[in-house]
Amino acid sequence: MRKIVRAFAPATVANVSCGFDVLGLALEGIGDIIELSLQEKKEITISEIVNGGKISLDPQKNSCSAVIKDILKELSIEIGINIRIIKGYRSGSGLGSSAASSAAAAVAINEMLNLNYDKTNLVKFAMEGERIACGTPHADNVAAAIFGGISLVKEENPLEIVKLPVPDELHISILFPDIKLETSFSRKVLSKKIELKTASKQWGNLASFVSGLYQSDYELISRSMKDEIAEEKRAKLIPAYYQMKNAALKNGALGLGISGSGPTVFALVKGEEEAYNVKKAMEEAFHSSKLNFESFISKIRLNGAEVINSSNEDYYEIYQYKKQVEYCKL
Amino acid sequence: MRKIVRAFAPATVANVSCGFDVLGLALEGIGDIIELSLQEKKEITISEIVNGGKISLDPQKNSCSAVIKDILKELSIEIGINIRIIKGYRSGSGLGSSAASSAAAAVAINEMLNLNYDKTNLVKFAMEGERIACGTPHADNVAAAIFGGISLVKEENPLEIVKLPVPDELHISILFPDIKLETSFSRKVLSKKIELKTASKQWGNLASFVSGLYQSDYELISRSMKDEIAEEKRAKLIPAYYQMKNAALKNGALGLGISGSGPTVFALVKGEEEAYNVKKAMEEAFHSSKLNFESFISKIRLNGAEVINSSNEDYYEIYQYKKQVEYCKL
Repeated sequence: MRKIVRAFAPATVANVSCGFDVLGLALEGIGDIIELSLQEKKEITISEIVNGGKISLDPQKNSCSAVIKDILKELSIEIGINIRIIKGYRSGSGLGSSAASSAAAAVAINEMLNLNYDKTNLVKFAMEGERIACGTPHADNVAAAIFGGISLVKEENPLEIVKLPVPDELHISILFPDIKLETSFSRKVLSKKIELKTASKQWGNLASFVSGLYQSDYELISRSMKDEIAEEKRAKLIPAYYQMKNAALKNGALGLGISGSGPTVFALVKGEEEAYNVKKAMEEAFHSSKLNFESFISKIRLNGAEVINSSNEDYYEIYQYKKQVEYCKL
Repeated sequence: MRKIVRAFAPATVANVSCGFDVLGLALEGIGDIIELSLQEKKEITISEIVNGGKISLDPQKNSCSAVIKDILKELSIEIGINIRIIKGYRSGSGLGSSAASSAAAAVAINEMLNLNYDKTNLVKFAMEGERIACGTPHADNVAAAIFGGISLVKEENPLEIVKLPVPDELHISILFPDIKLETSFSRKVLSKKIELKTASKQWGNLASFVSGLYQSDYELISRSMKDEIAEEKRAKLIPAYYQMKNAALKNGALGLGISGSGPTVFALVKGEEEAYNVKKAMEEAFHSSKLNFESFISKIRLNGAEVINSSNEDYYEIYQYKKQVEYCKL
């Protein structure tokens, strides 16, 4: 048993246009760090949330503590653990903020108690954190945060995650508008039932997207990035969405969609320079909204959540995206 | 322009459990042959349908003539063509009988007039035959019949077919109950709307099925063969369906499902000997229905529809499956 463990988990883009509720991908250089310390008092406490904004320190309302409690309950272990959370980005972004914290918490407690849970089991526990954050336990973001790369939630019950190949030149351009969208609200705008015809269009494109990944066929990936389920309804919640989409596609993006339940939008792009150009085009299109935003480009992080050794809080390497992030405050 | 052209197109299994309306695969040794002959009279006629049962000779009601008329109309060509159809198997089987005829017709006229249409365009024309046969133009069977192998209808509009890899040892055990199910009726038992949750289960499994094909991961293929859309409703129309399914799975099948809209059932199996065992198990389970059936095993035919040179009607090689088909008449 280790006294102090720190783990990092990346931010993630879920849905990825054609993979509603099943696809997710991990970003490089952005994510959360969770630090667990054993304590004598047999309680789960949260001493600090760095950059946490309004996130409560109440362990009853926090995804990390939910994950840790769930694992300890499963094992019938009674110990005291204090949690420090270092948020790398804001919650309500659509980049899997609660998932990153939950995933890092699951990886950290696994290491601390030497539990040797496999990744699928860690996803299961991390889903408990998602239950606290969104009301229902979803696997798409936590799967990508724990497995890294591009992950497919084959099924939630029994839970199975399939890791998909990542074409070498795939980059992501991200724009995060400075508005907050609660996942639970973004869920409400969707219909619970869909036309069978609409569904089969969606799964035709998802299957060809997967095929495109295996073949590194960027054109096929591009033609498959269609969202029949959420885009039309959620685009209304995101200022200048279609302007950004048009601008991105005009500038060579393979596709642009809503990251998870938004408001962040992401574009898949072939090549780094091209990703910068697409990001710039998205920024220019977003200016019409007169809102603040953050933007950056990223590759897909091939590794998922992991234990880290850095004992200081500089975490410069992990937060390297901050080197190039564009802040726009009007 | 050639005076006589013959083309063969294979029987096909559509849907393949997790790929409702988008997946199809081609069978070896079973299919239809279409023979086209130029004639002076500027009409499309059908002189004969060998093994055609009750299929009408009226060119207004036939899928082959519909395909040929559509192509001639597209090209504004007025010529006379007589059609002979040699059916390799019965219509209403769920093995894409009208699709095989339509696909062979499209390939034959393409050759006769030296049109050089690519396969996607041939699928488009063959879909016209499906319109005559089923009321709506579906692409899944004709795509598999023309492309061969395992094909994915990425989208119908614009039409795009993605050819998927075929793992080497994949075999198919087929049992064709001696009852007739019209596609239009089998469609009616399905709901037009489905739960979003059900849909996302289906596409999670379809995406992992595709991943399984690329990795030749037979276990993943097996775990992905789940049909959330049609199985429960159509199984009721097929005698002893679940008995066959249980028997097949018990005997090592990767999965068993309904071929297209039924009544034929198919099992995917790893290995030839295993496919025989699974076929036998399906037969034994089906005996409880006290109905006649045909059964056979097949590999996946990698080539699609093609022009053939045989001038006699023995077609022994093409109909090689008849060497091993089991007829069971009570």
